[in-house]
Amino acid sequence: MFDLVIKNGTIITTEATYQADVGIQGGNLFALGRDLSGHREIDATAKLVTPGAIDVHVHLQMPIGDNVSADDFFSGTRAAALGGTTTIIDFVEPEPEQTLLQALAARRAEADGRVVIDYGLHMTIGPTEMDKLDQVPAAAGAGCATFKLYMAYGLRLDDGQLLQVLETVRDAGGLPIVHAENWDVICNLIARNLAVGRTEPRWHPRSRPAPMEGEAAGRVIDLATLAGTPLYIFHVSCGDVVERIATAQRRGLPVYGETCPQYLFLTDALYERPGVEGALPVCAPPLRTEADQIQLWAALAQDKLQVVSTDHCPFTQADKAKGLGDFSRIPGGVPSIEARFPLVYAYGVRTGRFSLNRWVDICCTTPARLFGLTHKGTIAVGYDADLVVFDPERQVRLSPQTLHENVDWTPYDGLEVTGWPQVTLSRGELIAENGQFQGQAGRGRFVARRLK
Amino acid sequence: MFDLVIKNGTIITTEATYQADVGIQGGNLFALGRDLSGHREIDATAKLVTPGAIDVHVHLQMPIGDNVSADDFFSGTRAAALGGTTTIIDFVEPEPEQTLLQALAARRAEADGRVVIDYGLHMTIGPTEMDKLDQVPAAAGAGCATFKLYMAYGLRLDDGQLLQVLETVRDAGGLPIVHAENWDVICNLIARNLAVGRTEPRWHPRSRPAPMEGEAAGRVIDLATLAGTPLYIFHVSCGDVVERIATAQRRGLPVYGETCPQYLFLTDALYERPGVEGALPVCAPPLRTEADQIQLWAALAQDKLQVVSTDHCPFTQADKAKGLGDFSRIPGGVPSIEARFPLVYAYGVRTGRFSLNRWVDICCTTPARLFGLTHKGTIAVGYDADLVVFDPERQVRLSPQTLHENVDWTPYDGLEVTGWPQVTLSRGELIAENGQFQGQAGRGRFVARRLK
Amino acid sequence: MFDLVIKNGTIITTEATYQADVGIQGGNLFALGRDLSGHREIDATAKLVTPGAIDVHVHLQMPIGDNVSADDFFSGTRAAALGGTTTIIDFVEPEPEQTLLQALAARRAEADGRVVIDYGLHMTIGPTEMDKLDQVPAAAGAGCATFKLYMAYGLRLDDGQLLQVLETVRDAGGLPIVHAENWDVICNLIARNLAVGRTEPRWHPRSRPAPMEGEAAGRVIDLATLAGTPLYIFHVSCGDVVERIATAQRRGLPVYGETCPQYLFLTDALYERPGVEGALPVCAPPLRTEADQIQLWAALAQDKLQVVSTDHCPFTQADKAKGLGDFSRIPGGVPSIEARFPLVYAYGVRTGRFSLNRWVDICCTTPARLFGLTHKGTIAVGYDADLVVFDPERQVRLSPQTLHENVDWTPYDGLEVTGWPQVTLSRGELIAENGQFQGQAGRGRFVARRLK
Amino acid sequence: MFDLVIKNGTIITTEATYQADVGIQGGNLFALGRDLSGHREIDATAKLVTPGAIDVHVHLQMPIGDNVSADDFFSGTRAAALGGTTTIIDFVEPEPEQTLLQALAARRAEADGRVVIDYGLHMTIGPTEMDKLDQVPAAAGAGCATFKLYMAYGLRLDDGQLLQVLETVRDAGGLPIVHAENWDVICNLIARNLAVGRTEPRWHPRSRPAPMEGEAAGRVIDLATLAGTPLYIFHVSCGDVVERIATAQRRGLPVYGETCPQYLFLTDALYERPGVEGALPVCAPPLRTEADQIQLWAALAQDKLQVVSTDHCPFTQADKAKGLGDFSRIPGGVPSIEARFPLVYAYGVRTGRFSLNRWVDICCTTPARLFGLTHKGTIAVGYDADLVVFDPERQVRLSPQTLHENVDWTPYDGLEVTGWPQVTLSRGELIAENGQFQGQAGRGRFVARRLK
Repeated sequence: MFDLVIKNGTIITTEATYQADVGIQGGNLFALGRDLSGHREIDATAKLVTPGAIDVHVHLQMPIGDNVSADDFFSGTRAAALGGTTTIIDFVEPEPEQTLLQALAARRAEADGRVVIDYGLHMTIGPTEMDKLDQVPAAAGAGCATFKLYMAYGLRLDDGQLLQVLETVRDAGGLPIVHAENWDVICNLIARNLAVGRTEPRWHPRSRPAPMEGEAAGRVIDLATLAGTPLYIFHVSCGDVVERIATAQRRGLPVYGETCPQYLFLTDALYERPGVEGALPVCAPPLRTEADQIQLWAALAQDKLQVVSTDHCPFTQADKAKGLGDFSRIPGGVPSIEARFPLVYAYGVRTGRFSLNRWVDICCTTPARLFGLTHKGTIAVGYDADLVVFDPERQVRLSPQTLHENVDWTPYDGLEVTGWPQVTLSRGELIAENGQFQGQAGRGRFVARRLK
Repeated sequence: MFDLVIKNGTIITTEATYQADVGIQGGNLFALGRDLSGHREIDATAKLVTPGAIDVHVHLQMPIGDNVSADDFFSGTRAAALGGTTTIIDFVEPEPEQTLLQALAARRAEADGRVVIDYGLHMTIGPTEMDKLDQVPAAAGAGCATFKLYMAYGLRLDDGQLLQVLETVRDAGGLPIVHAENWDVICNLIARNLAVGRTEPRWHPRSRPAPMEGEAAGRVIDLATLAGTPLYIFHVSCGDVVERIATAQRRGLPVYGETCPQYLFLTDALYERPGVEGALPVCAPPLRTEADQIQLWAALAQDKLQVVSTDHCPFTQADKAKGLGDFSRIPGGVPSIEARFPLVYAYGVRTGRFSLNRWVDICCTTPARLFGLTHKGTIAVGYDADLVVFDPERQVRLSPQTLHENVDWTPYDGLEVTGWPQVTLSRGELIAENGQFQGQAGRGRFVARRLK
Repeated sequence: MFDLVIKNGTIITTEATYQADVGIQGGNLFALGRDLSGHREIDATAKLVTPGAIDVHVHLQMPIGDNVSADDFFSGTRAAALGGTTTIIDFVEPEPEQTLLQALAARRAEADGRVVIDYGLHMTIGPTEMDKLDQVPAAAGAGCATFKLYMAYGLRLDDGQLLQVLETVRDAGGLPIVHAENWDVICNLIARNLAVGRTEPRWHPRSRPAPMEGEAAGRVIDLATLAGTPLYIFHVSCGDVVERIATAQRRGLPVYGETCPQYLFLTDALYERPGVEGALPVCAPPLRTEADQIQLWAALAQDKLQVVSTDHCPFTQADKAKGLGDFSRIPGGVPSIEARFPLVYAYGVRTGRFSLNRWVDICCTTPARLFGLTHKGTIAVGYDADLVVFDPERQVRLSPQTLHENVDWTPYDGLEVTGWPQVTLSRGELIAENGQFQGQAGRGRFVARRLK
Repeated sequence: MFDLVIKNGTIITTEATYQADVGIQGGNLFALGRDLSGHREIDATAKLVTPGAIDVHVHLQMPIGDNVSADDFFSGTRAAALGGTTTIIDFVEPEPEQTLLQALAARRAEADGRVVIDYGLHMTIGPTEMDKLDQVPAAAGAGCATFKLYMAYGLRLDDGQLLQVLETVRDAGGLPIVHAENWDVICNLIARNLAVGRTEPRWHPRSRPAPMEGEAAGRVIDLATLAGTPLYIFHVSCGDVVERIATAQRRGLPVYGETCPQYLFLTDALYERPGVEGALPVCAPPLRTEADQIQLWAALAQDKLQVVSTDHCPFTQADKAKGLGDFSRIPGGVPSIEARFPLVYAYGVRTGRFSLNRWVDICCTTPARLFGLTHKGTIAVGYDADLVVFDPERQVRLSPQTLHENVDWTPYDGLEVTGWPQVTLSRGELIAENGQFQGQAGRGRFVARRLK
């Protein structure tokens, strides 16, 4: 007699699809079998049972310039849970005067009372951290073995710093994760565009050309190859980057890439819209073309890209409007923390682009494996009972009303999605059911991640 | 209370490594969990529990010219079982006057009373089958959805026939599997070599150059691309073929390749040995260089090759000696049906070339997936209880004495292997334990395979 | 005081464009300079002076089945001369009972009394020549150092024969030139098409798919690489072959390719025309798509293809009509011996695809260099005075009336061409002027070609 | 009766090798022919007659930090002339306060009274020139249509500036030429090496890794592709850069590369020598490995690299020694202005790596074509009579004594060279003969170069 049993569902893992009951005890997946009994039972007949989805790239209550991303650790993780995501990884950005561990403690303090699901934190290494590189092993030891490196923005590392940090992370057994764009080119193009009065959002993509994202990705791959380290490239938006990653992989290099829903579902045509409408989808890298979308979907099917995350970083319409007179001042970021897992199902699996198993691989298993979430990401005995009972036929029309993100718009407004979580379990606790949130702020835990 | 429980082992699947007990009932894997109890229990403490290994390429009691391969369906499957292999796939070669289904029935009649593990059969389509192409759907429907096509030997299809058969197999939802060598070149080189008195085994590899295996693989990939069909290439022996397959995969084509232990462990230096020693390792494609070995191991690690099978086709020293005066008359084939699974563990995993999970993927899970063994190849509820309790520290020195293949030599004589099956289960029955065979002839079943 | 001086022209070579007079004496180019005087002078003010064009691929009075190509050595070379071509290379096809030298003598006997320009001959090595391979050095020594090998038709060599011939030609210091198509596939497709009543010309291209021309080109490149010989590929029709050649070249292999006007100017849409109209442009490889045309033009500009020849092989409308009930019986071949040089100028240079110098390279210099025409192909002291005074502004509308080929149609009927020869000189003799033929049958000479 | 005739020589151009006399009148090549007569005649029997060599990359009397390169415009061009080089291209480096044209005038003032052969000047665009981009068309119009851009050193442009300059040069019809190394990485490595006391010359190559030269070359190719401009890459030292250039060329991009004798003849083993010996060959990029040498020679043969120039920039042993305590302060540069043309002959042609014609192409014709020296670089009527009578059998042992560069060492000391100029003519004037300089300072002229 287990605490909880999910009965009669179809289990989906990366390697198998089969019927079994799931027995849960004390937060763990305790048994997979037939005819299991529990104090509580959830009927999953005609439903899929998947691992809880993992979103390795979110920005909750993140300050950018004068703005702060609209979802805090509570509202953001609540939305995540309602969409079937049971673990997120957010970021630590140390202040100049902080040690890495102080910064980690401070960020955990912001999250711990609010999160409703488990979370990890990437450690950001910016220019001011060049003096703290001896602390990198300690950060890895504290469960932050994945290090975010920027090739753009104020946090940008130049190529020399980048090489040095890649070597340092390699020595600490960590994984570097990179925002790859060519910042010098972007700054030059922004300045030249603004100088001739090109201030509208449509100049945002024109200031960040896809070939220069490709260039930056190629460059950091070259640097990682020289350093002899694995590498993970964030938010791949275009075929040019896919090509660079695939070439590296074919040479046997451990290079990985993710894309995000905005690049799979939206195009740069949106920036041509008048007024704040054109400003809302500003993010970096920017949205690209339909041809890029096709290449991104194919790359997921062919394992040239390994993960779909969100880069969830919502700003309100009011915040976005602040940059209407200067596209470079529009706070960058879009929301998708809630709908990612169903979106990839609806438009990846149901369209025939890839299998149910690949869907789980992309959204759950590979994120867990690459980022050291050692007891999450699949359905196996002894793993955390982070599970989703997924209704493959439930239809949802996306809108700010149907979604629970703390932001007054969504780029997917009006999009029909077939397939949505019926139940979300986090360590055996039912935290969302039939679109109703059932969890509590602060029940989530920080996960100290370990890479092999 | 299950029929049988494997207790305290470490489960290895392609995606996870975890502690669990395995409950078996009526031949099926019934439960994975903690503290399971069974009428019989096997202690797997400090052991690995893996899916039964699958060997998709064996030739048992196969006539070649005047000889018959030395292992019949009993001795061959017994050896397989002792090495942890629980399913093999052998071949149907129709006689000219037989329908495909008649030929299937006849081959099953040879196997059914003898096999000690489950087996499938590939259907061979040779030139005399060009008039039977309308029977291909029936063969697929009878569980032989994988079709063996030869680009060499008397069964060779010319490129026009090959294209037509690829289209036919595609329409039947089948998978073509191909022996790729350039037969015209081989015949020409054999004739020219023999004409000048080059009769020794060392002229065997010199008559079948690696670039011409590469050429043939490239050619059939071109044909499959034109036909729009997936493709599986047998016994890849050299880096040249790896390169062709990897290029196709990078273009998104569903092309798969296997290699075999002989190509991973042996080199063409063996053909230089005097007398029958040089004749024993004659097989086709021939053994290649150390450089090729390195590329094959790397290709397995990088998923450019997907499977290790054996092409097990043993001939006695006496049979081999018949060709001493003419290398082209040496019956081709080497044994490895017993040691494959431990060999890949010992020299793939323990050397650090790839993970335990990749080992299981290469030897169990991917073979099952590609070849339609829908309830085999992984450890999951409802699957056949084909399982191996694998002792990772057991040491075996390979020799005709320690192996159970029905042949008086082994190319691996003297090779030390660390890691060997302790127990092999087939559909829940213990058929081998501590090197002792416990099964019965004829207990194995024909598996009607279904491709998705 | 020279015999003849071309005054005030603009000399075009592959490497320079400059003003100079050309002094000719005794058939040779004797001087380049200023203010030269001659017994006869040709004013080339505002004209280009180019080397005589060289067409390395023509079939004059060639029997194919029951038909003979419509131009004999007189009418064909007369048309060539009128279009600025001063050297052709045709073929020897030995009869089974002939030695190579006997066949050469016989073919020379057909040509010698008729040719009005110099000519060379390729030696064809078909299956019946496999017994004559010891004669290959003699043929090379007699000036036929370039050997035509077929991968299609009755003259087809299988891959083993092909390898053996490539090695033989390599040892004789010769150059193999290849018709690359996959004959087995073509035969299979023709048979399958005819079997279901697909007899019209539109089934001609559908029976010879471009990817199978690519396959064959890739295959012979693989064979040549194994043999270690240079290779020249005839009549490249499609981007797929360009890609294979370019890949080989990038690896440093001495692989060369030509295309022909029909592939640069015509598309397979012509085969859709009703009646004999659809049959006229039947040739092999067949005409391809506009996308292929774009790739061919680019390949010429980028030196992925080295030469434009014609494969001139005209058949009358009546001959073509014989195959209307069975596309596979339409005699294959189209005319373009006369217009090639101006066509490449008009649509290669005037459109900006490449320079005047590249035009001369493609049509004159590289053909001479690759095929051992050691005193032809450029404008230099001591070279044969094979020269064209080319009027870059002369306009000609192509039609059977304006052309002098002995055939009652042209695939370029109605095409406007700007730029045409004003004067053609062969070894210092004026053989064509202002569209009037001035030469005599039999004045041309066989050129014994020497490769370095 | 010409002013001067070179009699009985063998003319070598890129496309032909032939016997002819060369008639020279008023500085121009006036005639090529037989039996020409001159007031003066040079017997070239058994000699080669080539175009004067062109060195598009030299640094004469160039200030670097506290040092000035040891050859001034007189000594440098004298040495050049003695080695068969008749045109050099040096550099203008504008001072911040100078306009481009002022800087050009100032540099010409340094050169004009000293040069003994003709010369051109590249215009350097550094960071301080970003405000002068509107002057780029004027510089191009003044004959400096080739613009030197640095990705390293104080003159380094960041990627944004680089893109903007590439666009500007494109619009002016100019050719950008680039020093490609990753400066940020180099600075980081130098700092890290010096910080731990690695001060010896052997740390020079270890601070400038070949893959980072490859990276930089790839990056500027990406930028040039985005800008839509041709590109010329200076001093390619390694196979990694060759690969990037060849890939771009295969895609049809107009990307060109040069290498220099130091990379063809020397390796980084030299930096291991003790004392000043290890410092002497310091240059940037640094010397590489033998494997790189092999790739560079092959790239020249296969036209993946187009030019051999020198990057001649000699410093005395005393100057070099100033950096013995800090490798980063060793003035970078090596001499080779005199021996380049014979070196490429002796080790390129005589070893069979490529033909006489390719030698002339690499050292004379292509440099002239790419850099707009419209009447130089080949042997044709109307061209400048810049010619070399080259004795293919003359043997010279290189040393500071046999060479005439104004520097007390040579990296080629002791190297035997077979083949050396007998006579060098510049615009018809004999300026060097049998190792004796015969010209006068200031006779050379600035060449206003025009790109097509």
